[in-house]
Amino acid sequence: MKRLLTGRAKPGATREQTERRERFTRARRESLRPDSDEIIVLYGWHTVTAALRNPARAIHKLLVTENAARRLAEEGVPRAGRAEIVRPSAIDERLSPDAVHQGLYLETEPLAAPDVEALRDGIVVVLDQITDPHNAGAIFRSAAAFGAKAIMTTQRHSPDATGVLAKAASGALELVPLVNVQNLARGLAALKANGFLIVGLDSEGDADLAALPLRAPLALVLGAEGKGLRQITRETCDHVARIELPGAIVSLNVSNAAAVSLYVANRAIATG
Amino acid sequence: MKRLLTGRAKPGATREQTERRERFTRARRESLRPDSDEIIVLYGWHTVTAALRNPARAIHKLLVTENAARRLAEEGVPRAGRAEIVRPSAIDERLSPDAVHQGLYLETEPLAAPDVEALRDGIVVVLDQITDPHNAGAIFRSAAAFGAKAIMTTQRHSPDATGVLAKAASGALELVPLVNVQNLARGLAALKANGFLIVGLDSEGDADLAALPLRAPLALVLGAEGKGLRQITRETCDHVARIELPGAIVSLNVSNAAAVSLYVANRAIATG
Repeated sequence: MKRLLTGRAKPGATREQTERRERFTRARRESLRPDSDEIIVLYGWHTVTAALRNPARAIHKLLVTENAARRLAEEGVPRAGRAEIVRPSAIDERLSPDAVHQGLYLETEPLAAPDVEALRDGIVVVLDQITDPHNAGAIFRSAAAFGAKAIMTTQRHSPDATGVLAKAASGALELVPLVNVQNLARGLAALKANGFLIVGLDSEGDADLAALPLRAPLALVLGAEGKGLRQITRETCDHVARIELPGAIVSLNVSNAAAVSLYVANRAIATG
Repeated sequence: MKRLLTGRAKPGATREQTERRERFTRARRESLRPDSDEIIVLYGWHTVTAALRNPARAIHKLLVTENAARRLAEEGVPRAGRAEIVRPSAIDERLSPDAVHQGLYLETEPLAAPDVEALRDGIVVVLDQITDPHNAGAIFRSAAAFGAKAIMTTQRHSPDATGVLAKAASGALELVPLVNVQNLARGLAALKANGFLIVGLDSEGDADLAALPLRAPLALVLGAEGKGLRQITRETCDHVARIELPGAIVSLNVSNAAAVSLYVANRAIATG
């Protein structure tokens, strides 16, 4: 058993057999690297056509219904020829019952993460354990709308959740690169070493975000609903800031907090 | 048939019989007024305890599990004595399968709508056909956080949707009065007659919201995802404004747009 898993040569095997086995084992190991084997599932008209229009987006499997195939052809969506035509039920059974797929299903992989050098003239949004895919998707959309350079997170969503996230992102998954890191504190340290100002958002933050001397490159760090930023994340921040809220509720939904923070930071950077 | 519906006296009825029938018919008519017969369903720990703590919130039926009853007593939640103790299944069967009720179920009615006079020193958020309860709930939460005076809408949500909305609102349903109007254009006209500046939000609006001379009383009008403001709503606005978005996506999720608009309007009004 162990021999099979490690690909060690069987006694009596020829050198050629041994080499072939080693190549096979190496290939399997390669495919276990997070960025090469992670398959994500996208569905729905807007999400899938945005992915097909993005030449950087690999196609592993593209299933479409006859109706959807016709519409893809009519609208001249690129790479529609790669589709396998299937019955709606073939897509239904691969997704959760409430997934509105509109006859399109795509298996792909995450886009290549950008080098930190490429992010240095802008804003990176950092998500600390934000698991809700509606919120994460809306944050992708706002990040794209406000021209953020990337989203950094440790969170890997399940295929179902990735589909929900992609729909909520409204095409933004093709526009904002995702930097998936193993350890957020180390990811933030790497940004800091590259000159980023690190600002965490918290409803009980010491500073008013709008009063801080914000400048690019900037990392805006958001925590999960209820839990907020973890202590280790908080300690890595240059500032922990709040959004001034004059009303009776003292915190916003996290995607709303992200949108307001991006608005404030963009204005501050644009006006110097 | 018509006689029954209109409550007209039957031939040969005594005066007493006729009067009784008229009283009955009047009572039926009364109960058809939108604000007296609408029952809304709330569930979940945060939502229901916030409602119980709000003395203005009527209790029609309060069902709680034994565990929830114990916790209500421990935390000294007011009006917990009004609860009927039931098995969890009795609550399950009244709600959709994915409703996380945490053992609390409340039937109540909308809070009394405030008089337009009471809104005149602040901001009212106006929702034009925003049906998604997650978005509507997040907007309630932001409205409470930014101290908005009320939310005006024509939208009546189903009991299931109201539960989702209340959860997303995170207690804000108790803090921001809802003004339900039959006709939005007439509702906006009433605000305008009371001195409100009416500003619609649209990704293709002529003006940058931050550059407008905003002042209280102010109505911020938001349309549904994708569809935006209806033509008749747009025509009632003094300005149709956009949020400046420098990125590749030109519109925000509607609750994010609401949060950014409220932020901008609050700052503008506070700084005069």
